[in-house]
Amino acid sequence: MSQVAGGVAGGARLPGREAAAPRPEGRLSVIALDGMPEVHPGDDLAALLITAIHATAGVLPLAEDDVLVVTQKIVSKAEGAVVDLTTITPRPEAVAFAERWDRDPRQLEVVLREARRIVRMANGVLITETSHGFICANGGIDASNMGPQSGHVVTLLPADPDASASRIRAAVRAAFDVDLPIVISDSFGRPWRWGIVDVAIGISGLIPLDDMRGKPDADGRIMRSTVRATADELATAAELALGKTSGRPAAIVRGANPTRGEGKISDALMPREFDLFP
Amino acid sequence: MSQVAGGVAGGARLPGREAAAPRPEGRLSVIALDGMPEVHPGDDLAALLITAIHATAGVLPLAEDDVLVVTQKIVSKAEGAVVDLTTITPRPEAVAFAERWDRDPRQLEVVLREARRIVRMANGVLITETSHGFICANGGIDASNMGPQSGHVVTLLPADPDASASRIRAAVRAAFDVDLPIVISDSFGRPWRWGIVDVAIGISGLIPLDDMRGKPDADGRIMRSTVRATADELATAAELALGKTSGRPAAIVRGANPTRGEGKISDALMPREFDLFP
Repeated sequence: MSQVAGGVAGGARLPGREAAAPRPEGRLSVIALDGMPEVHPGDDLAALLITAIHATAGVLPLAEDDVLVVTQKIVSKAEGAVVDLTTITPRPEAVAFAERWDRDPRQLEVVLREARRIVRMANGVLITETSHGFICANGGIDASNMGPQSGHVVTLLPADPDASASRIRAAVRAAFDVDLPIVISDSFGRPWRWGIVDVAIGISGLIPLDDMRGKPDADGRIMRSTVRATADELATAAELALGKTSGRPAAIVRGANPTRGEGKISDALMPREFDLFP
Repeated sequence: MSQVAGGVAGGARLPGREAAAPRPEGRLSVIALDGMPEVHPGDDLAALLITAIHATAGVLPLAEDDVLVVTQKIVSKAEGAVVDLTTITPRPEAVAFAERWDRDPRQLEVVLREARRIVRMANGVLITETSHGFICANGGIDASNMGPQSGHVVTLLPADPDASASRIRAAVRAAFDVDLPIVISDSFGRPWRWGIVDVAIGISGLIPLDDMRGKPDADGRIMRSTVRATADELATAAELALGKTSGRPAAIVRGANPTRGEGKISDALMPREFDLFP
């Protein structure tokens, strides 16, 4: 633990990336971090993650092709982006929709307050565009996994998820002397298909899209329109190891080797003028 | 090679699942299969995959928590679900749209022929509902990675991707005595976000959705609306290891442990009456 604290505070160089063996192409692993405690408002999330990295067998040494994926819930909790629904008075529109569709009117009220616009409000589903530009059900506001004493507390999305990711990245770099790309992930539904998948809502240290346009494919043919949503794929792969009920809220994805750079999650969002489903 | 052929033909029991060590929870690995040759119409795809499993270091023994993800392109090619665009005469609607947006009118014609309905046709983008019920750009029809002599040949989606998956599953079971769930994957765009991600278009041996509704979360709270799109997540995780230009068209996902069962991909598609983006 003193090593960890020293790493965070003083930028101590722990033995690390020099020892990492090169990984064969086409191999990927996801390692859920063990030992993450329940996170509370005001907690130093980066320090908790660094402790968890130390506590998880097989994670160290970190390597240049590792990515740390952190689920939104613990970021929001640490940052105090939570709302106690008992303090919320819903507007009549929220009350009416909640009564019709058996939902909590206070949660709908919070979604509407956080929304830049309502995209759809029908069939019991409220889809909004958040202040960040994400289009998702319930504005990313969520009540699950909030802790045994959480009562009616829900999490909002972090105010600036890229900034949240940058802070974690800086602390991890100081602790381990490895510049790990960070992805903040959240579970989104999709039109036309049932079920949620995790996508990226904040990033630091990577480019969210791998633009293959103009690069040759395996046959040397120029690919015209292939842009990979790499940050989203990293979030999804992490979730597959984390599961939904395991109490593991962060994972290292090893071997994916995303394009490094100072990308922003907004780079991955489609501007309104291209949107065929406004 | 004789072992492989014997396995396929005679159901020989190779040393296998008894030797597989239990994997720690929260660990996942993806192993792209090496040694897949270029696939041609009429090829026995399952036999090629079995050979590739033998040729890939670290894959054997297969285990009960492995999933084999196979990309659509090689399934379509093996099944002859290909069209030579030089044989296609586009309708005037396809010609006009192609001229306006610098696209191949013959490819648009094939998309329209394969479509059950047009969902959007604007901004240079043609989104259709396929005969399978998938809603995606260009009806899943694709020209990349078709081989150096492919000229103007494009792949269609397999006629019945679940059946394609079932055939591979039966052959793998006969060869290795392990009942591996199979996912056929393809790259789909999404509304509101740039970039494609791989999703499942055909499955065998697993349930595509993990319905967490009514199960307690980590705090014992009952989760009301969490349904995981597990088959899609498996497809996405596989893609992250396969990459787009590596010539590796199939992967084993190890440790994800999806719910086993006789699911159909149509179970993962939202019926029209729930669709807020028709």
